[in-house]
Amino acid sequence: MNNKYHEYPLKTIRAGVLGVSGYTGQQALALLLGHPGVRLTYVAANNTQGPVASIFPEFINRTTLVCHKLDIEEAVQKCDIVFLALPHTESMKVAGKLLKAGLRVIDLSADYRFKKSKVYETWYGHKHSDKKNLSKAIYGLPELFRQKIKNAEFIANPGCYPTAAILGLAPLACTHKDILSIVIDAKSGVSGAGRKASVALHFCEVNENFKAYKVLSHQHAPEIEQYLYGLAGRSIPIHFVAHLLPITRGILNTMYVQLKESTTLNQLHALYKKFYKIEPFVRLHPAGEQPEIKNVTNTNFCDLGLALSRDKRMVVITSTIDNLIKGAAGQAVQNMNIMYGFNEIEGLL
Amino acid sequence: MNNKYHEYPLKTIRAGVLGVSGYTGQQALALLLGHPGVRLTYVAANNTQGPVASIFPEFINRTTLVCHKLDIEEAVQKCDIVFLALPHTESMKVAGKLLKAGLRVIDLSADYRFKKSKVYETWYGHKHSDKKNLSKAIYGLPELFRQKIKNAEFIANPGCYPTAAILGLAPLACTHKDILSIVIDAKSGVSGAGRKASVALHFCEVNENFKAYKVLSHQHAPEIEQYLYGLAGRSIPIHFVAHLLPITRGILNTMYVQLKESTTLNQLHALYKKFYKIEPFVRLHPAGEQPEIKNVTNTNFCDLGLALSRDKRMVVITSTIDNLIKGAAGQAVQNMNIMYGFNEIEGLL
Amino acid sequence: MNNKYHEYPLKTIRAGVLGVSGYTGQQALALLLGHPGVRLTYVAANNTQGPVASIFPEFINRTTLVCHKLDIEEAVQKCDIVFLALPHTESMKVAGKLLKAGLRVIDLSADYRFKKSKVYETWYGHKHSDKKNLSKAIYGLPELFRQKIKNAEFIANPGCYPTAAILGLAPLACTHKDILSIVIDAKSGVSGAGRKASVALHFCEVNENFKAYKVLSHQHAPEIEQYLYGLAGRSIPIHFVAHLLPITRGILNTMYVQLKESTTLNQLHALYKKFYKIEPFVRLHPAGEQPEIKNVTNTNFCDLGLALSRDKRMVVITSTIDNLIKGAAGQAVQNMNIMYGFNEIEGLL
Amino acid sequence: MNNKYHEYPLKTIRAGVLGVSGYTGQQALALLLGHPGVRLTYVAANNTQGPVASIFPEFINRTTLVCHKLDIEEAVQKCDIVFLALPHTESMKVAGKLLKAGLRVIDLSADYRFKKSKVYETWYGHKHSDKKNLSKAIYGLPELFRQKIKNAEFIANPGCYPTAAILGLAPLACTHKDILSIVIDAKSGVSGAGRKASVALHFCEVNENFKAYKVLSHQHAPEIEQYLYGLAGRSIPIHFVAHLLPITRGILNTMYVQLKESTTLNQLHALYKKFYKIEPFVRLHPAGEQPEIKNVTNTNFCDLGLALSRDKRMVVITSTIDNLIKGAAGQAVQNMNIMYGFNEIEGLL
Repeated sequence: MNNKYHEYPLKTIRAGVLGVSGYTGQQALALLLGHPGVRLTYVAANNTQGPVASIFPEFINRTTLVCHKLDIEEAVQKCDIVFLALPHTESMKVAGKLLKAGLRVIDLSADYRFKKSKVYETWYGHKHSDKKNLSKAIYGLPELFRQKIKNAEFIANPGCYPTAAILGLAPLACTHKDILSIVIDAKSGVSGAGRKASVALHFCEVNENFKAYKVLSHQHAPEIEQYLYGLAGRSIPIHFVAHLLPITRGILNTMYVQLKESTTLNQLHALYKKFYKIEPFVRLHPAGEQPEIKNVTNTNFCDLGLALSRDKRMVVITSTIDNLIKGAAGQAVQNMNIMYGFNEIEGLL
Repeated sequence: MNNKYHEYPLKTIRAGVLGVSGYTGQQALALLLGHPGVRLTYVAANNTQGPVASIFPEFINRTTLVCHKLDIEEAVQKCDIVFLALPHTESMKVAGKLLKAGLRVIDLSADYRFKKSKVYETWYGHKHSDKKNLSKAIYGLPELFRQKIKNAEFIANPGCYPTAAILGLAPLACTHKDILSIVIDAKSGVSGAGRKASVALHFCEVNENFKAYKVLSHQHAPEIEQYLYGLAGRSIPIHFVAHLLPITRGILNTMYVQLKESTTLNQLHALYKKFYKIEPFVRLHPAGEQPEIKNVTNTNFCDLGLALSRDKRMVVITSTIDNLIKGAAGQAVQNMNIMYGFNEIEGLL
Repeated sequence: MNNKYHEYPLKTIRAGVLGVSGYTGQQALALLLGHPGVRLTYVAANNTQGPVASIFPEFINRTTLVCHKLDIEEAVQKCDIVFLALPHTESMKVAGKLLKAGLRVIDLSADYRFKKSKVYETWYGHKHSDKKNLSKAIYGLPELFRQKIKNAEFIANPGCYPTAAILGLAPLACTHKDILSIVIDAKSGVSGAGRKASVALHFCEVNENFKAYKVLSHQHAPEIEQYLYGLAGRSIPIHFVAHLLPITRGILNTMYVQLKESTTLNQLHALYKKFYKIEPFVRLHPAGEQPEIKNVTNTNFCDLGLALSRDKRMVVITSTIDNLIKGAAGQAVQNMNIMYGFNEIEGLL
Repeated sequence: MNNKYHEYPLKTIRAGVLGVSGYTGQQALALLLGHPGVRLTYVAANNTQGPVASIFPEFINRTTLVCHKLDIEEAVQKCDIVFLALPHTESMKVAGKLLKAGLRVIDLSADYRFKKSKVYETWYGHKHSDKKNLSKAIYGLPELFRQKIKNAEFIANPGCYPTAAILGLAPLACTHKDILSIVIDAKSGVSGAGRKASVALHFCEVNENFKAYKVLSHQHAPEIEQYLYGLAGRSIPIHFVAHLLPITRGILNTMYVQLKESTTLNQLHALYKKFYKIEPFVRLHPAGEQPEIKNVTNTNFCDLGLALSRDKRMVVITSTIDNLIKGAAGQAVQNMNIMYGFNEIEGLL
């Protein structure tokens, strides 16, 4: 069935998704199937094969695509760009070959997010086997690195918590030299933990429950710190605690930024408004109003809210995204749009 | 912000939505905003005014539309077609005027679903004040009445439970003269009850709960009976029980059809497959596999599953839709597409 | 910490639970810890060892019990009665030895629920290795078999769906010889599926979802049929469809009983009221009112509601229980109370 | 039906609950019905009358109590102690009369939690009409004020967020003079918002959602500050943000305490362990392990977890309670137990 009303006027690009059996891969498929500038030409996974509509019945009548056993040669022949929705350590096994063959690559794993392999190895507990390509990878956060993404061959797509955190903190980090410390109290829906068989992710363990996990020891903390360092030009200590929300999708970070000097809510709001003036996917709420997860669910938006303490030195920023879209597959598509000169919002609204 | 990548090649139609403050109106807005053949020119409600993005923050950055106090004259001047997302009894106050002024109307309330005003009055408990237009209304179930819808000026959009029930039963009702009785065990998410302040709809009353309601006395039962009568050419007794699911969206009907003669699962499956062969929005699962609500959430699909008892005379049909889309606003857009000669799936995939 | 305010005046019995790592075992532990007539003397599992408070942190400060590797000899030495919260096929490996050693046994698995091993083997797909003790097992549904339970050494604790179904149907089955057919549309919370690592039970697969499963082929159907046969003195055809509710606990069965002769709602209500007059755990709602799962959650109650069709020949019975309590561990404790002459509600209110 | 297996050896006290139509009143009823030292002799509400089992069907077969129109004279005649589960500003209209008549009173509203009426008036926006009795009210947090509660006639039962917060912070506040600042990131289930008809509490608005509310302006912040001041002997600035969790019951506070001097996790854990050594309802998790809401749901426990930053100067404390039990009715019963010399855990385990 042809689900495109109008033929796309430009030539389309050929895209592949490696690792479609997880939630990120499933979301990437859904977005790319609806993108008028893309033909999905190769879909593969390590452990799952067969028609995509059998693996995920939501795709019945929507695609006749078949998921193949992952084969790099086939990916090279069939694709212009490949999305890697593979687990950490799997991406670094294939990214190099794809790049060498001239494909563009967007990696949704953590394998290429750190500039120093040492940091990756410390926090992820694995040796890095492709250090050579680390320096090629552009961190795919368009609101901060759009110019670099335009010319990129290789994108390290940001983590979900870091996307929400960095977008919420960037305006302050870029302009306020008096930040003393930052607390990030982060909450995520369960799809962020991946689609794996596990008692800890059993419905009855998560439902009607809430808990902190990886307290002060989450691997997304150094990712945030690395990019805040880049923005601020100095190291800013952050304290990051993750929590598991009994919902399927969505992240909300509540961030407490202690300033040395006082400010005003109007100044803050004006700063954020200007910073994100041209951004299609960042929505700043009126001062004093708070974003909610449900307003970004199934979208590529990042919604932001601001508040200020009575002593005017503690800024509270709330930041919310859909972890599978702006926090993963949607941001990947946004990056692809920038790389290929498509309208940045194509396939995302 | 322009969220349409390509200009629509044909002239667009001007659409209005009356009653946007409820879940059905909100869903209609979301779908029409993304429809390339439609310009939303008038949005109104009785009790809510102001920017749509203030009423529903999900629309921030997506539309600058303002919701006005409902004014029929304004609707007539600004619209070619109007969607009535008003409560029952409110639609019949305005539909006549809109039709008289030459507009096309799609009514999402129950006011024009019954051929006989008497049935409406019995089940809804209100006098019908616009009997004159009852006969003009075409029941907007495209899979059964597409030809009539093509030329319709006025659509009575089906109820949510009836959409799922009739689509699941129609192939049998049209072909099997030996149906003895039908049990419809229907389950709906909470948005079906509307967006109203009520202790019964309080999160804590619905969450971790499940119950039957309006047992054998739900107002959607006569709507189903009326159209089954039309399909079967005779009256078929149905027993309908509604239940409230602790989810936001989705209906699943489990339907038990007692036949006098035995049949086979293969025959049944072939019958359904043929019946819905050309339908873009009806998806028949392989024999023995069951549809799930989550695969139709946020879509206009109706997914069907079939099973047969060991004695081969009890057919079990499961049928699932998103109550706000195929059960309301999506089906309304599908009807509009048919009325205006758009591709039937435009704005719905 | 002593959590019993008063010493129990009678001698207490020594109880063991085998298989505490699942939801049924966890619930049995919680109930037995609060029972003034019981000392928990042995707790064991096949795959989990260590302090119960480490396995289930809800028990911190409530018990210092340690879970051991399952050892029948130890159970025999330490216990007067043993609850088997083991998976199907595991119970039949140990029940015989425990009975032979003179212990009383309450088996919460399906291994001894069928009078004929053949039926078990057909529906559960395993050979029955302890046919000898099948005839000793008393079906532990106190409302129907209290006298037999009083003298029982060995209880086959009923399945969760069958408990709700049989309690809802028994008054009709015992008195109405004109039942033509029965449809049981059953819905259960996720704990009924057990505490196992499985993608199908992953939070994101169940949440905001609903589906039918094992349509007309669920292994609880023959269990219901067997006992209805006993009550009615003849075979009554039932059609049973199970569904998965996105809640942790609770079952609600909606049951449609087609009668040949007409009846009245008052007659029905009087029949049920009389049938369950002395029952502490069956609560009949006023005619026309429906029970809700949340009112039985965390209790041993079974709540019932009645309705009748306009033609007065279709009876709709809704029946709800907590699947882990009245549907499993609570009913087991109720059976123990009867066996030992405790007040039947001891430890259950 | 007698649901007490043993007669209570001591004379029982006569208790009343005013305001039973809300969630707090409902929970107080449930606990007091199961308390062997209490006879519930008067149950009343302003807007609801009739059998308690009609108002809340969970109480069918459990009590024949009838809810009356609130009448102070009747309360005085029938009760020794009265629980006020009334809305804020309603308690202060009746507490004085009850105290004057010699009854003991436990007020679950906020009316008597502040030592200075001015603070109440600022944060709750109402004049205080019973300043006279403010000084009589003992703050009913047993872990800190047990001795005063023993002799109290009048208890101001703590707020839900403050209970979790103060119990989590007290050991540090009492001993560490170098606390620089405290961030309290608080999350609550929906029952904390009360049982009222409101679109904001509609299932569809809360489900699959999460948001911050009353950011840095919640009325529980000054309650926490007041008692921390008492413990620390000086004012400690706190930054408090509340969030709404899509669950029925439970609070989890994540608290970030910035110290001037470094400490160790072992020292911290030892401090907390000693502080709560004799407490039946405070459960400290092993260092590095985190409590979860589900382990305290339906209990009177407060579970605590501790973590420390790498620079050893930021302490993270997670604290979880059931907001309706330890955060309201359970704590009220605990206070009653202390006041009357019952075992402190009576009726609560």
